[in-house]
Amino acid sequence: MALVRPENPQQARLVRLLRDEGPRSRVELGDLLGLSRTALTTELDRLTARGLVETAGPAASRGGRRSSLLRLSGGVRFASVVVATDRVTVAITDGELNVLAETDEVADVRDGPEPVTGRAVELVDKLRAELGVTELTGVGVALPGPVDGGTSTAPAVLPRWQRFPVRDAFAAELGCPVLVDNDANVLALGERHAGIGRTVEDFLYLKLGTAIGCGLVLGGSLYRGATSSAGDIAHLPLGEEGPPCACGEAGCLEAYCGDVGLVRAALAVARSDRSPALAARLAEAGGLTVADVAAAATAGDAATQLLVRDAARRLGRVLVGLVSFFNPGIVVIGGAPDGFGHLLLSEIRGVVYRRSAPLATGTMPIVLSDLAGRAAVVGAAHLASEHVFSAG
Amino acid sequence: MALVRPENPQQARLVRLLRDEGPRSRVELGDLLGLSRTALTTELDRLTARGLVETAGPAASRGGRRSSLLRLSGGVRFASVVVATDRVTVAITDGELNVLAETDEVADVRDGPEPVTGRAVELVDKLRAELGVTELTGVGVALPGPVDGGTSTAPAVLPRWQRFPVRDAFAAELGCPVLVDNDANVLALGERHAGIGRTVEDFLYLKLGTAIGCGLVLGGSLYRGATSSAGDIAHLPLGEEGPPCACGEAGCLEAYCGDVGLVRAALAVARSDRSPALAARLAEAGGLTVADVAAAATAGDAATQLLVRDAARRLGRVLVGLVSFFNPGIVVIGGAPDGFGHLLLSEIRGVVYRRSAPLATGTMPIVLSDLAGRAAVVGAAHLASEHVFSAG
Repeated sequence: MALVRPENPQQARLVRLLRDEGPRSRVELGDLLGLSRTALTTELDRLTARGLVETAGPAASRGGRRSSLLRLSGGVRFASVVVATDRVTVAITDGELNVLAETDEVADVRDGPEPVTGRAVELVDKLRAELGVTELTGVGVALPGPVDGGTSTAPAVLPRWQRFPVRDAFAAELGCPVLVDNDANVLALGERHAGIGRTVEDFLYLKLGTAIGCGLVLGGSLYRGATSSAGDIAHLPLGEEGPPCACGEAGCLEAYCGDVGLVRAALAVARSDRSPALAARLAEAGGLTVADVAAAATAGDAATQLLVRDAARRLGRVLVGLVSFFNPGIVVIGGAPDGFGHLLLSEIRGVVYRRSAPLATGTMPIVLSDLAGRAAVVGAAHLASEHVFSAG
Repeated sequence: MALVRPENPQQARLVRLLRDEGPRSRVELGDLLGLSRTALTTELDRLTARGLVETAGPAASRGGRRSSLLRLSGGVRFASVVVATDRVTVAITDGELNVLAETDEVADVRDGPEPVTGRAVELVDKLRAELGVTELTGVGVALPGPVDGGTSTAPAVLPRWQRFPVRDAFAAELGCPVLVDNDANVLALGERHAGIGRTVEDFLYLKLGTAIGCGLVLGGSLYRGATSSAGDIAHLPLGEEGPPCACGEAGCLEAYCGDVGLVRAALAVARSDRSPALAARLAEAGGLTVADVAAAATAGDAATQLLVRDAARRLGRVLVGLVSFFNPGIVVIGGAPDGFGHLLLSEIRGVVYRRSAPLATGTMPIVLSDLAGRAAVVGAAHLASEHVFSAG
């Protein structure tokens, strides 16, 4: 199937509605979009002829003539490629962004873009073969750092990726529109489609982990800023001094609260006489990970808990500023290793609720994402669908 | 004239276009709005019959039949009320938000809302009598602090105003729709209509002075946040310690960089032996103002310059966070006393350009507002017009 996009804004609204709400009857679609029966029939006929929409079977009877449900066609298939610093995950979804197949593999972004994107293409092709998907409708790609026009711009996290044309590389191999964005934006889109963000028009997604970033959803849509770098808070300076950061500066938020910063602090604790738990783990494994930090803190190790609380307080103080400024309906926190998010959450909440302007936070929930890894692949598919499901 | 609002979205777009662009021919309006000649004529006839639009005179000939210009009717008149902590300013504008008459008077908000709003109504009535304006189309009110649903919520700055129904009080006296917002939002609207913000879709307005705040314009419209408190950065904590703030906390941005904080720091300098200039001024006047601080710094007094640079650096560090997060196209700074803005600007620029994410700030100008006091009255009129010029 060659690329088919909606021809006009009504058709674009129809396919987005079917993406977000699933199969619907003609009556429901007309009600939801405020379209007359005639206009709706015209647009649905065109979308059906173009292979975007199909009949799904009979709708529940409303007592009168039985009507059939309409849904996005089985020919609509999106691929998601989520590049993390140490792993690549790919998935194929249907038009409603349900994941049909998913796989992931260890991959080190420091090997450079060619082997990582090449392997991602192979994994996509493998899933396509398994599912019998001949043509992809669109591909969404998440990178662990700032993206400008389909190209990575973050040499610190992705040292050999700067100026590599990620979008063009995937488009050449996969033969369909490819959209690239940073992981925080993609996660925010995933929350908007399938998580707690479904019910909130304005929310802030705070991504923890190796790279720290924010995704902002305003009025239901991702806000990218004047030069596509909104939410790029990784290198906010927290003071004049501080630990060195991969970016070359010192005292950045990420240097304190990113995985590398947490592990550095944990190593210092392990090598002192303050934490028998971390010292034992270090002796056993020869190194520490954030999962080790989470395990020691959860097991009650006091020095580790202190370390985690310190990081959470720094995150909380940054959040106070962002929340006062942006006044979101909710803050969603994700991206932290399993078990680590809960450790951070209560301390972050304490700082934010204590020192934010009351009007901004009196009723503002701070929650952990409950989508786990699914947010990224759903968000990447959503990124692609937003482009393909706009009037061509 | 009873309140007349546009009947549908096309009419609303027409009157907003005439507000923002001034008199236009039918051909230009059709082109700008993408409306057919028939649809345009229908809507313009209805707007004319309803007294919102009138013929302004012949348009410049394009070689064919002469067409006439259309403009907002002379019956469209907005009033602006700008309440500062020590002064109230009122103005009357036409539909294009040109100021037809303006006056201001000393007024202390600590006297409470009744005398201040009462006096503002008298001043509006005085201007109406001078101009022969019998009916107002709408009134915009700016308050120096957070506003929630037409009511002030800032007991620190407006101690006796909390829960006073500002909107209802004006509406009862002036008999037309009244819109109330905080001064930073109103100033941002003024910049959007008449200042550098005309050409920028996404910008941040940083308001200095007695109360510190931000107005955010996103996609050309003011962004208010989930609970109308976006931009409310006055009480951001800059550290665990710091000077006391009117809000009851310590170390807030406003306690350092608001007028009260600057004067407190200047008094400390004057009473030490570090600034002969400020000491002499204090001895002469019995107190200090921000204008005295600006004068001493401009005259080269080293201790005063240090004090100003310290405040500017604190503002700069907060801006680094906001700019990284929000990625505006431009930052506009206003609200500081004459001469003071320039003193702050270069230091603020230095901090922001040094420590922001390059992608966000590489091309981002930081400028002083060139509208001076006019931004507030134009912005207040704009606030009212946005409401009245929406489909009723």
